[in-house]
Amino acid sequence: MSSARTASAKTPARAPAQSVTGDPLLLTPGPLTTSKSVKEVMVHDWGSRDATFIAINTAVLEGLPKIIHGEADFVTVPMQGSGTFAVEAMLTSFVPRSAKCLVLVNGAYGLRAKKILDIAGRAAVVHETAEDTPPDLAEIEQILEADAAITHVFVVHCETTSGIRNPVEAVAALVKRHGRRLLIDAMSAFGALPLDAREVTFDAVAASSNKCIQGVPGLGFVLARASALEETKGNATTLVLDLHDQHQAISKTGQYRFTPPIHVIVAFHQALQEFWAEGGVAGRGERYADNARILIDGMARLGFETLLPAARQAPIIVTFRMPADERFAFQRFYDALKDRGYVIYPGKLTVAESFRIGCIGDLHAADMSAFVGVVAEVLDEMGVGLKTAA
Amino acid sequence: MSSARTASAKTPARAPAQSVTGDPLLLTPGPLTTSKSVKEVMVHDWGSRDATFIAINTAVLEGLPKIIHGEADFVTVPMQGSGTFAVEAMLTSFVPRSAKCLVLVNGAYGLRAKKILDIAGRAAVVHETAEDTPPDLAEIEQILEADAAITHVFVVHCETTSGIRNPVEAVAALVKRHGRRLLIDAMSAFGALPLDAREVTFDAVAASSNKCIQGVPGLGFVLARASALEETKGNATTLVLDLHDQHQAISKTGQYRFTPPIHVIVAFHQALQEFWAEGGVAGRGERYADNARILIDGMARLGFETLLPAARQAPIIVTFRMPADERFAFQRFYDALKDRGYVIYPGKLTVAESFRIGCIGDLHAADMSAFVGVVAEVLDEMGVGLKTAA
Ligand SMILES: Cc1ncc(COP(=O)(O)O)c(C=O)c1O
Ligand SMILES: Cc1ncc(COP(=O)(O)O)c(C=O)c1O
Repeated sequence: MSSARTASAKTPARAPAQSVTGDPLLLTPGPLTTSKSVKEVMVHDWGSRDATFIAINTAVLEGLPKIIHGEADFVTVPMQGSGTFAVEAMLTSFVPRSAKCLVLVNGAYGLRAKKILDIAGRAAVVHETAEDTPPDLAEIEQILEADAAITHVFVVHCETTSGIRNPVEAVAALVKRHGRRLLIDAMSAFGALPLDAREVTFDAVAASSNKCIQGVPGLGFVLARASALEETKGNATTLVLDLHDQHQAISKTGQYRFTPPIHVIVAFHQALQEFWAEGGVAGRGERYADNARILIDGMARLGFETLLPAARQAPIIVTFRMPADERFAFQRFYDALKDRGYVIYPGKLTVAESFRIGCIGDLHAADMSAFVGVVAEVLDEMGVGLKTAA
Repeated sequence: MSSARTASAKTPARAPAQSVTGDPLLLTPGPLTTSKSVKEVMVHDWGSRDATFIAINTAVLEGLPKIIHGEADFVTVPMQGSGTFAVEAMLTSFVPRSAKCLVLVNGAYGLRAKKILDIAGRAAVVHETAEDTPPDLAEIEQILEADAAITHVFVVHCETTSGIRNPVEAVAALVKRHGRRLLIDAMSAFGALPLDAREVTFDAVAASSNKCIQGVPGLGFVLARASALEETKGNATTLVLDLHDQHQAISKTGQYRFTPPIHVIVAFHQALQEFWAEGGVAGRGERYADNARILIDGMARLGFETLLPAARQAPIIVTFRMPADERFAFQRFYDALKDRGYVIYPGKLTVAESFRIGCIGDLHAADMSAFVGVVAEVLDEMGVGLKTAA
């Protein structure tokens, strides 16, 4: 089935790379390559009201706040669906109808938050910077000083559009100083970039099963400060995305309000065990940082430039500028890599022609080195001149 | 892990029943027991933008309308999340903000639809009958005649609260005669009770991956009349639940707007193949009808009475009245059945004390017969007198 194993006119000399389960390696921002053990736990059935599943689910919900050192003050509110479901649930549950939200935008996910607020009829203003540029703290301060109606600020931790690491800690300090509330979309950063709730003040952070925790897609979640969540009763304008209602039901019964995505949750439980076994945020963050370093250094040797300077680059996904060499055709590059067992990701930047390579998922140093080797091979095949720089 | 295989003080003499994957059999309205082959396809990873996955997804979306003979006029709009996500998406996308919906209620799922409309600020009125009673067609007619503001009618095909089969065909004819639009929640009926779009007029029907098609939970979908869907632009009050927007994106790109629950979709694809191999609605409906007959007859021999008369009973889930015998303790009954490998379902009726047994999922005649045998054993153990009636 996998086209990585399909013979083609350009079949590479060596066997294509593949994961343990025979699939191409996903060097994308998600869905990711997950471990075999994460996927294998799904070959069972569970009743959603049965003690066995409820214990698994409870372990997941109780364990997640530890990742942000939030055991004391935070609760997990799961929201089935993709990460955007969790973000929409967070925004529409936490931002009351009469409130106003400042959205920090430097990519597609900030823009999406603005769109969600607009559709839901919540007042929203934007502070926008270019995709390769972090938000401007002085300007945010001016906006907050000038507009007392702003009650909330929304920031994306790693803006996956470019791979930029936004300064959430500094933004949080500023928002706190001005007595506003912070909501964070940490989707692609959660579990790999540190976020310490004891030091960084925020009301809620949204993430999903399927990024750095390395579960399968289908479950989002919001870690909410319990005291802030309590105040959200009646804010939501939907039934299914109402985090207050969801939390009430789960607290009372241990059960979801609606049929949960059992298999996705059990896989997530397994993924969390593997996450802790790797050393939590420190261990996982280190592996991803290694992956990113091998990738960036290797690609640099081949002449590829990153969009972002090192200081702004998160070790999650790397945006490379499209080479100027006219013999470089992206679709051919993509297909040749796919034939060799690597799936990469197109860019969607407005500031520059680009493509993206993910460093997250069940990918290791050897995979990244091998990938760089394959890129060299493909460039050669395309007749694109290799750089011989050190 | 599975408590069905845990030795207990009351370990039954024979080995507990279990599915091929060693799990208790789920005699519930969902999550259900699925086939091993459905679960096994999930032990892979796919890129969501990759041709392999897109082909699987397209096959799912194009195949579903055939189940209602709607190939000519209907399109599938997937909605990740549980069935309620699909129902809320259907109601809030199809009922404009200025419209009014008549909700037919005879159980929890009709009530839930009313609640969704209330929260979303859509005008809604209710025609309610008891949980064991179908809607009253004459009364519906009066309501429609008296209130020209009503634009839509909502009906639940099989109201899973009791297991009653509601007369969607008659309701549809009446709604059509009065020039209104029909929305159907067919969650627990879809794929087992016939619904023929060539004969029954409706704008949309909501269902999910995890009932009679026997996939794993995590994906809902709405089959929408293409012409009616076109008119829904701008109706939705959320981003994620907007069926018009979802359909536009998928039509243009073959891709979901947000990360899809890949594994759930691939399992659903496998489940659909097994559904067609069994003979589609006719074949699956027949197996479930057999299951229900064996269950109802067997339980009757043991003295259990169904809530519903045969004519109102759908072959999906059967509600049994709680026996009057005071030696019958439901929790003990439930636990003893669980120990023997069968998970049943509590009742949530207001009209009578009851419990429910599902007939859907990867359950066959031999499973139902064995289940009845085990119920007899458990009654014996509880000292509840068995009936000796024929
Ligand atoms: C920062 C960020 N926010 C939100 C999302 C949306 O997640 P999903 O595609 O799961 O809806 C993503 C997905 O990559 C993301 O990176
Ligand atoms: C008729 C009906 N509608 C809606 C639902 C809700 O589905 P879910 O629990 O998947 O949200 C169900 C679930 O059993 C149902 O039977």
